[in-house]
Amino acid sequence: MIAYRMSKLDSSGIRKVFDLAQKMQNPVNLSIGQPDFDVPEEIKTEAIKAIKDGTNKYTVTQGITELRDGLLKRLQKERGVNAESIMITSGVSGALTLACMVLVNPDDEVLVPDPAFVSYKHLTNFCGGKPVFIDTYPDFKLTAARIQPHITKKTKILVINSPANPTGAICTSEELKEVAELAKKHSLLVISDEIYHDYDYNQEFDSIGRYYEKTLVLDGFSKSFAMTGWRMGYAAGPASIISEMIKLQQYTFVCAPSFAQYALSRSLGTDISKHIASYQKKRDMMYDGLKDKYHMVKPAGAFYFFPQVPWGTDEEFVTAAIQKNLLIIPGGVFSERRTHFRISYAATDETIKRGIDILNNLTKQ
Amino acid sequence: MIAYRMSKLDSSGIRKVFDLAQKMQNPVNLSIGQPDFDVPEEIKTEAIKAIKDGTNKYTVTQGITELRDGLLKRLQKERGVNAESIMITSGVSGALTLACMVLVNPDDEVLVPDPAFVSYKHLTNFCGGKPVFIDTYPDFKLTAARIQPHITKKTKILVINSPANPTGAICTSEELKEVAELAKKHSLLVISDEIYHDYDYNQEFDSIGRYYEKTLVLDGFSKSFAMTGWRMGYAAGPASIISEMIKLQQYTFVCAPSFAQYALSRSLGTDISKHIASYQKKRDMMYDGLKDKYHMVKPAGAFYFFPQVPWGTDEEFVTAAIQKNLLIIPGGVFSERRTHFRISYAATDETIKRGIDILNNLTKQ
Repeated sequence: MIAYRMSKLDSSGIRKVFDLAQKMQNPVNLSIGQPDFDVPEEIKTEAIKAIKDGTNKYTVTQGITELRDGLLKRLQKERGVNAESIMITSGVSGALTLACMVLVNPDDEVLVPDPAFVSYKHLTNFCGGKPVFIDTYPDFKLTAARIQPHITKKTKILVINSPANPTGAICTSEELKEVAELAKKHSLLVISDEIYHDYDYNQEFDSIGRYYEKTLVLDGFSKSFAMTGWRMGYAAGPASIISEMIKLQQYTFVCAPSFAQYALSRSLGTDISKHIASYQKKRDMMYDGLKDKYHMVKPAGAFYFFPQVPWGTDEEFVTAAIQKNLLIIPGGVFSERRTHFRISYAATDETIKRGIDILNNLTKQ
Repeated sequence: MIAYRMSKLDSSGIRKVFDLAQKMQNPVNLSIGQPDFDVPEEIKTEAIKAIKDGTNKYTVTQGITELRDGLLKRLQKERGVNAESIMITSGVSGALTLACMVLVNPDDEVLVPDPAFVSYKHLTNFCGGKPVFIDTYPDFKLTAARIQPHITKKTKILVINSPANPTGAICTSEELKEVAELAKKHSLLVISDEIYHDYDYNQEFDSIGRYYEKTLVLDGFSKSFAMTGWRMGYAAGPASIISEMIKLQQYTFVCAPSFAQYALSRSLGTDISKHIASYQKKRDMMYDGLKDKYHMVKPAGAFYFFPQVPWGTDEEFVTAAIQKNLLIIPGGVFSERRTHFRISYAATDETIKRGIDILNNLTKQ
């Protein structure tokens, strides 16, 4: 009864974590993929106004003009990206779904960093493509030198996620320029997932879209404005691709939530610098608390660490952590390797401190 | 660059209408697929409360338990449907997308009424399946007798949409029982799109889920509560199917908008009977205004008429209407035939009256 393509969608890794998590009572939770603060008040006020004003109906599929224009201008001004076209999507996951379905033919090869956010691999597989992993251990840097050996005649897409989930690594401008050169040489399409761009602690963030026009920038507001439940993202890039994504959105997602589109169109400039400063402190607290006992890279962005497990496999180590009431995620969820684990510091300082204590008592089996 | 499957997604018909509509200034618009009233105040109040309270984050993929449980109970109580499992989706379109991707294998045959809502055909094609059309002209009744000749060994799914878009036709309980018998005999899965169930002017609505357990009920709140922009739907049916749809939702839609889930969980019982009574009057006004000059069936539900064009093809007639500033939709968007057109009466009484006048002056070329 179930279609063949579902067999290509493996969710056993993340399911196992969900199952474990559901059995835990009030865990020390360092597994969360979203900020611990709420949507900024000024955006909530605009959202409430939008609902009261009756902007509760379908928008055009591509999203309201005010928001699309505002975003194109910001992309140009803040990232130097001159995108031909833009559409509003239901989160970055919505944009990524549309992009994969519109672009990935069976047997197309898609270059995916390893480790990386789960969906790149799974959606590529779901569309019949072949994810080709670029090993970025141990420093998690995605460089032209690491990408180059994996390019074949079948390579169609390169996925970049900077700042990265689950590592927090950021590609510098120099690194991106080299990657752009390589992509250009082989005429690859670059999908640049920039959802964590505001979590950039050393002011290093740059978009490859500035250097390479065949870039599809995916971004959204889930992480910057803590509105993961509002499902607000966008895709910007070549008009020939965006127009096909809009066509598919008409029959699938229809449109991104209306009230949120109106609210965001009026509050794109909301200042979240105090939150970013607070997250930088959380990063430092976690790094200082764990660096003596764990092999880990100090991340430049996002809100994750990806340390090496001190013993056993990733699942064995995470199982031991869960027995101590600490919820973290085994690296195998994000990687072909079973040697690391993901910590999120999107948590209260108190939770981070308790997590550090538990981890420092777990270094020996 | 674009994947092969996009060539199976034809949106030229509906695009043409959008393009025409955009050129019209302040048209008499009888093309709208959503109610002309706003979200009921009590639901807006709950939504605003949910946003203020900070329920702005991801929910679990399948949707919040309060809402799922509430809906299962209502399905049992109001429609006699004992669904094994339920999930919250981003509108009925979201549910339909997941269902098609999870169920339709290449070469599977999907029985689709003709005329019908556009997505059944297009999503089936997109997934590599073959839509097989059941001609329901001239009365638009989907009956076992009409379905039976189209069943082959490859038939996997039967789509029912009662009350129907674009015809307003409703399947009676007797008709559904016969269809259920036929589906059972051939072990078909029934996808029952019940989004218009509240727009039921003769108290005839029934769910085939009451008579056949291999039914996937798709429904939502876009039409009942006028919240098309909130993207709130659900799918209820066999657990083996829902669990696969949840797996796919994790990587695509992620979750339906959070605030709306919380708001609805507290306001499922909202009374919209005054709106339904008003829509019944609009239906009668339109029927009485057009019945002498147009071949049309008086619809029992939804908010559409699907009359025969009095001359020319559907596109020729609609083009003439647009020249008179009336926006309606050519039947070919919903059908393999080019002989009818869709009128929506989701409009003010004044707009309906102006539309009737224009149509009555268009009966001769």
